[in-house]
Amino acid sequence: MINRSNLAFINDSDPATDRIEYDEALRLTELEVRKLLRNAPSLIRRQTSHLARATGKGMRARALLACALGRDGLVTQRTVNAAAAIELLHLATLIHDDIIDDADLRRGIDTLHVKFGQKIAVLCGDYLFCLAFDLAAAIPPRETDRDKISVVLPSYFTKICLGEIGEFSNTGNFDLTEREYFKIIAGKTAALFQASFHAGFLLSDEPPEAGNVYIRIGKQLGIIFQLVDDCLDFISSTKKAKKPVLADYRRGVITLPLIYALQADNTLRGKIENGLSEGELKAAVLAAGGIEYTRSKIRERWSKAKKLIATLGSENKKNRLELLLDKAVAL
Amino acid sequence: MINRSNLAFINDSDPATDRIEYDEALRLTELEVRKLLRNAPSLIRRQTSHLARATGKGMRARALLACALGRDGLVTQRTVNAAAAIELLHLATLIHDDIIDDADLRRGIDTLHVKFGQKIAVLCGDYLFCLAFDLAAAIPPRETDRDKISVVLPSYFTKICLGEIGEFSNTGNFDLTEREYFKIIAGKTAALFQASFHAGFLLSDEPPEAGNVYIRIGKQLGIIFQLVDDCLDFISSTKKAKKPVLADYRRGVITLPLIYALQADNTLRGKIENGLSEGELKAAVLAAGGIEYTRSKIRERWSKAKKLIATLGSENKKNRLELLLDKAVAL
Repeated sequence: MINRSNLAFINDSDPATDRIEYDEALRLTELEVRKLLRNAPSLIRRQTSHLARATGKGMRARALLACALGRDGLVTQRTVNAAAAIELLHLATLIHDDIIDDADLRRGIDTLHVKFGQKIAVLCGDYLFCLAFDLAAAIPPRETDRDKISVVLPSYFTKICLGEIGEFSNTGNFDLTEREYFKIIAGKTAALFQASFHAGFLLSDEPPEAGNVYIRIGKQLGIIFQLVDDCLDFISSTKKAKKPVLADYRRGVITLPLIYALQADNTLRGKIENGLSEGELKAAVLAAGGIEYTRSKIRERWSKAKKLIATLGSENKKNRLELLLDKAVAL
Repeated sequence: MINRSNLAFINDSDPATDRIEYDEALRLTELEVRKLLRNAPSLIRRQTSHLARATGKGMRARALLACALGRDGLVTQRTVNAAAAIELLHLATLIHDDIIDDADLRRGIDTLHVKFGQKIAVLCGDYLFCLAFDLAAAIPPRETDRDKISVVLPSYFTKICLGEIGEFSNTGNFDLTEREYFKIIAGKTAALFQASFHAGFLLSDEPPEAGNVYIRIGKQLGIIFQLVDDCLDFISSTKKAKKPVLADYRRGVITLPLIYALQADNTLRGKIENGLSEGELKAAVLAAGGIEYTRSKIRERWSKAKKLIATLGSENKKNRLELLLDKAVAL
């Protein structure tokens, strides 16, 4: 059990002196995640310390912190802990995903199952998942009549699992439709962004009826994030992406650029089945308009998210969320 | 997300008409678990329906229901849902355990990873874990000043993961001490019993200060349960155990009967390393007193649990918990 006496957020009084700037909160979140990984029980510390060597861009923590910003433009220590919990949850899902996907590289370093073996990686994912929930369970909402974060999180995680299962079940399925693809990414990627937005909202001073707008922005941002990632798989370099390019394609994960290209160019499927070099495949997807079509979908979602953000109250929060949206598109 | 409008426990008013006898509650729990497995989303229904074919003895559900019994000797519908959540959590841990242990058979049927593959089994375990937490998150405590079940559960699950990791890390370690062994089983088995007792207590009408006694009984019962299981691995038949005998030993899990026998008979380790038939190993562990010693530990724990149960208020609850204790010993 987490030693809750060590955690600053146990203080429910939430005095003004506790309030923290966004950039400082982000820095504290990264520190907290590293601390939790480096101070894990000795049984698992080798594995969690390996994970601490490379952290991500913290998009989900940034989202949660931005959503939690109060009218004074600040957040509380408990929000930092919630953001750390969300990043740990994300990390736990990545560990299991990498097993499912046979991925060798993540955030520029060996994946856990490659370095330590598949079994310990399953257990390590389970452990971080539970640790994150334990952390989240200790975080009170900002007002007593709001749901606790630990009450709203699990339903998003069933969605994430179903998204992952949907993706895995459709490995190598060239008949996957655009509609099915969007359903999969709504689970595997967007649900965690929704969870981050929902948790941030619960820790904010927004009125209760605003919750739904937050969750909807989270969904759009999550989908954009995945669409951009799916484009990168076809157009980026390994160095830039910090993971192998065409990795999705090689392991049979069918994404929107390819789905569109297969529809637009009905000779493509035959060519793939007869064997295409990676360069030829990239060129074919580009020529068939797969990347451009995916980008048009990104723009659509970007506009939707932008409009939803505009309905929120505070200028500071709007700016933060718009920056995040632009960061997601520019990845 | 679980469609909470379908769940009876959403009614927070908890009227007297909702109150259910223990046996009926146990039957409803089993039905609820099967229903959740059989009505899972179509993507995963083949796997969950396979699991629904063989359910366990429901020891953790029985424990939770017994602890939740009110002064009137009855429980509420929400207690049934909590018991179903605990059984699903147990099932989720079994799925991952069986992957880690390379187990082929569980509850008399093929394990999930043998039947459907390791990757889908990892995801299916994750899904059931999240589903159970989602179910638990919707259950209000009996009184507003009690912790919610979803708040107390995660810390037990970090313990379970660490117990599993401890066991896995000590595969084939003939130097494992009795103390280390007890630490491992306190996590991998006893923590879920503690969670069941804690959750049952939160749904009971016992005074808040009684919580600790419940958790302590849960720990003793969980340890007894594991000690009995570890004896059975040496003395039962496959048919009776519904899983292969000497399964632990074959996969390098060192348990108390063997730990004791290795200490009592200092020729045994050499014999094992030179190769012993299964019959010879069983005979050697028995002759060295490994089974008798483990049984003495079971009796010690049984006495401790019995004394703790005697301190509880209601006769009805005492009887139920004593029956459960005797059932654990008689397995």
